[in-house]
Amino acid sequence: MTDRQQLIAGLIADVPDFPRPGVMFKDITPLLASPAGFEAAVTALVEAAPRDIDVVVGMEARGFIFAAPVALALGAGFVPVRKPGKLPGETISESFELEYGFETLTVHRDAIRPGARVLVIDDVLATGGTVGATAALLRQMGAELVHVAVLMELSFLEGRARLAELGVDNVTAVLTV
Amino acid sequence: MTDRQQLIAGLIADVPDFPRPGVMFKDITPLLASPAGFEAAVTALVEAAPRDIDVVVGMEARGFIFAAPVALALGAGFVPVRKPGKLPGETISESFELEYGFETLTVHRDAIRPGARVLVIDDVLATGGTVGATAALLRQMGAELVHVAVLMELSFLEGRARLAELGVDNVTAVLTV
Repeated sequence: MTDRQQLIAGLIADVPDFPRPGVMFKDITPLLASPAGFEAAVTALVEAAPRDIDVVVGMEARGFIFAAPVALALGAGFVPVRKPGKLPGETISESFELEYGFETLTVHRDAIRPGARVLVIDDVLATGGTVGATAALLRQMGAELVHVAVLMELSFLEGRARLAELGVDNVTAVLTV
Repeated sequence: MTDRQQLIAGLIADVPDFPRPGVMFKDITPLLASPAGFEAAVTALVEAAPRDIDVVVGMEARGFIFAAPVALALGAGFVPVRKPGKLPGETISESFELEYGFETLTVHRDAIRPGARVLVIDDVLATGGTVGATAALLRQMGAELVHVAVLMELSFLEGRARLAELGVDNVTAVLTV
């Protein structure tokens, strides 16, 4: 690990049995509370970005915390992907399976122009459900998903393989655990 | 209005009857999608900040979009105030009244040390319920709420007066409508 990766990893806390028994939750609030740690995390995500990104997409709610600063640093627009009922305009939706039941993500139908070069930023890549649904939303809009950068990849959940099956194979993680 | 205020105001869309009939919703997604507009909004919030801020607090979910970049720009820590069930550690909570029913906000009990100088950032100041509940959470932690800066104040909803009754009188808005 680099010094930067060690700094970041040391500020992410393992919380057992949250939100359900058997789940080891990765708590990023100590990282966010550390000016040096938060700065290092955003810088690492910015450095992972390819050139000429038009739009950075972040997913509600924790994804906003990293995606918005990355958009500003790249001089790109920021487009929020949200839970249903939050966006006032005409939206498109994608649902994906969770351990129990389904979750739905929405975005304004005209949020991104066809052909725009898009970077998706999220905090954690777990099973890949959120990123997969976002990739499907981008496809509906005709946007080009150039890259996905996440702070932390939980590799044992095999999200990367699931995303590859969906045609999303340009994924990098600042930390892999 | 300054040029910067005009730029920002021109990128916020009025959406009638959202989320309920009779409500004029302020849609900030065009502002976020504009690199120049989003940058101008964050710069204006940063310029509103007093000196020596230790912690910037943002409220889920739209508040994160502005509060996180402001924290990075100030070299301060970022602390998220969240809906119930999202934070894995021991939390404290405050509820406030909405038009119909109640909303609850939570924060990790140890998120901010007593005496820390705190800046609260949000996108819209409406009735003041969210900011008021956040101020109460900060009081519970013994933190000092130094300043509240919002992108847009809906003055006809009189949130500023309601916050003053709660002892929160250091509030600035980039735009007032």
